Amino acid sequence: MTDITPEEAARHQQKMARRKALQDAKVASKTREKGLLIVNTGPGKGKSTAAFGLMLRALGHGWKVGVVQFIKGTWDTGERRAVERFADLVEWHVMGEGFTWETQDKARDIAAASRAWDKARELMARDDIRLVILDELNIALRYNYLPLEEVVATLAARRPDLHVVVTGRNAKPEMIAAADLVTEAALVKHHFNAGVKAQEGIEY
Amino acid sequence: MTDITPEEAARHQQKMARRKALQDAKVASKTREKGLLIVNTGPGKGKSTAAFGLMLRALGHGWKVGVVQFIKGTWDTGERRAVERFADLVEWHVMGEGFTWETQDKARDIAAASRAWDKARELMARDDIRLVILDELNIALRYNYLPLEEVVATLAARRPDLHVVVTGRNAKPEMIAAADLVTEAALVKHHFNAGVKAQEGIEY
Repeated sequence: MTDITPEEAARHQQKMARRKALQDAKVASKTREKGLLIVNTGPGKGKSTAAFGLMLRALGHGWKVGVVQFIKGTWDTGERRAVERFADLVEWHVMGEGFTWETQDKARDIAAASRAWDKARELMARDDIRLVILDELNIALRYNYLPLEEVVATLAARRPDLHVVVTGRNAKPEMIAAADLVTEAALVKHHFNAGVKAQEGIEY
Repeated sequence: MTDITPEEAARHQQKMARRKALQDAKVASKTREKGLLIVNTGPGKGKSTAAFGLMLRALGHGWKVGVVQFIKGTWDTGERRAVERFADLVEWHVMGEGFTWETQDKARDIAAASRAWDKARELMARDDIRLVILDELNIALRYNYLPLEEVVATLAARRPDLHVVVTGRNAKPEMIAAADLVTEAALVKHHFNAGVKAQEGIEY
């Protein structure tokens, strides 16, 4: 790119040495380990996708992972097919029956959400599982398909080393209050608005 | 949960049938297929993680994927170990040498960024690869380690069916203008602020 003068190189080195000292002190000040409640919410894309990226990282460390999908139906997705290579480590439960406008049956949606929550509690109680992903749980709570207070209390009472990821837009304030890490995905620009359709490998 | 009256069930069914009609019309109106330029930016967590989740989805469809990491050094991460199970599909290149405050050497950082960009162009030119992830490219651009105009022009001139994901905070306006899908991750709450340290399986 551009040539760097010796003075500039030295200034950069000094600045970065100071930054490293600050960074090291910051890292040293964090000492606790803790199973996290992670919430991925907001109207943007990538909430479930980030959860599955975290799953991949955990799988790389040989962790067992449990996944419960609260809304998505049984259709085939790339992520589900990909985890077939981790059949020894992943338990994946599709408990939803599709979007509310697909089922058009409120009682059936509520029953599906209850079964999904039972499965979630079962996975969280298993001490061989270190990460549980509750995909679109926020949606089920938004529609009042599950008792919010009980769900949040159960998540808060998880064992100290269990990490749980909850996804879905419109996370309830009570869920955010209970969480350790909350990321809100904002949509800046979307290709659907330019007439591009949902494509294999990207949207599913 | 709560009992549903027949009237309520019927109202719900009608509302959802209308919503499904709208949804179907919306889906039908999107007809184009297009290789997307996806940008994950913002100060929140999950930008690279979402990119690796998208990679997992693509791998499930049997796609070949190329990854170039512009900043991260050669340290071991869960995601890198996990993709060993996809050695037939993933080409993963760690081209960075660590954070700027680790190397403390601007000329070396620029040289590493240039090599990474060469590798990125090489992967994008390969027609067996359908998804290329340029992890932390935004950081290299932020520091002016690469020529912004050339990088954006090359990305914009990608072949029509190639998907590219660019991650890193502080995406340049020119990058956002060229993108099809931009998500900004906002940090709502972070466990580091509660003294919890970076943990295996979560941060790396």
